[in-house]
Amino acid sequence: MLNVDTIKNGLVIDHIRAGYGPRIFRWLGLDTASFSVALIMNVASKQQGKKDIIKIDNIINIDYSVLGFIDPNITVNIIKDEKIVRKINMSLPDRVEDVIKCKNPRCITTTERYVPQIFRLVDKAQALYRCQYCDALYKVGDNMELMEHSL
Amino acid sequence: MLNVDTIKNGLVIDHIRAGYGPRIFRWLGLDTASFSVALIMNVASKQQGKKDIIKIDNIINIDYSVLGFIDPNITVNIIKDEKIVRKINMSLPDRVEDVIKCKNPRCITTTERYVPQIFRLVDKAQALYRCQYCDALYKVGDNMELMEHSL
Repeated sequence: MLNVDTIKNGLVIDHIRAGYGPRIFRWLGLDTASFSVALIMNVASKQQGKKDIIKIDNIINIDYSVLGFIDPNITVNIIKDEKIVRKINMSLPDRVEDVIKCKNPRCITTTERYVPQIFRLVDKAQALYRCQYCDALYKVGDNMELMEHSL
Repeated sequence: MLNVDTIKNGLVIDHIRAGYGPRIFRWLGLDTASFSVALIMNVASKQQGKKDIIKIDNIINIDYSVLGFIDPNITVNIIKDEKIVRKINMSLPDRVEDVIKCKNPRCITTTERYVPQIFRLVDKAQALYRCQYCDALYKVGDNMELMEHSL
């Protein structure tokens, strides 16, 4: 129903967990883009029931490790001359920096604003990350609040 | 390029000033919708150069006076069985309540949180509104900050 036609040169971020599209859209700074972009939410999907899709009519730089952290099921299709020339599968990155904030009030990153927020993957199956400084555990997907910045 | 196919039963909010789509999308609460929705930005438009479009695969209630306040050039198409059954043109409403905040620090609405924010249209051609309490002038479109609430 809400399919979007193919784009000429750009990216299609597909298989986004339903409901996660808007925050990825914002996180990529697409809400202030000057080129054509589309955010499509709650599209019927065979694999997932429902999914979100983002279409970008421009080649932009994306930090794939962060996309994989937000949702490892995401695939990114790179489109050239209306054809998919590359399909990139995401995975949980070993390390993320300044993507999420440690919620431990006694962690050094809470009091020292200029210490980067670094988390390391400790359990891939359970998608568990640990703060590098205080060892606080963080499970991906639990009401994820991403730090605000644009790419 | 980024056209979205027709929807079965729902609304198409068309001719949105380019760049205003995301805030209308959020303001309508569509970023947490459970039905299919699409936000398409910077589509080529004969009239406007570029425009944003929102497609909603569901019949939802919209306060048209507020949409008209955000952008009087917007048209809303109501779709039934894949056909446009009604086309609604927006216009600047005579009065808006709790849509924008008065920025005058000495206005009663700034100190008394429970006084509603009421603005009245005083100059249609210039799209000027006046705060009902302190007479502060407000021009529609100038970095409009909408109050947060869902419909």
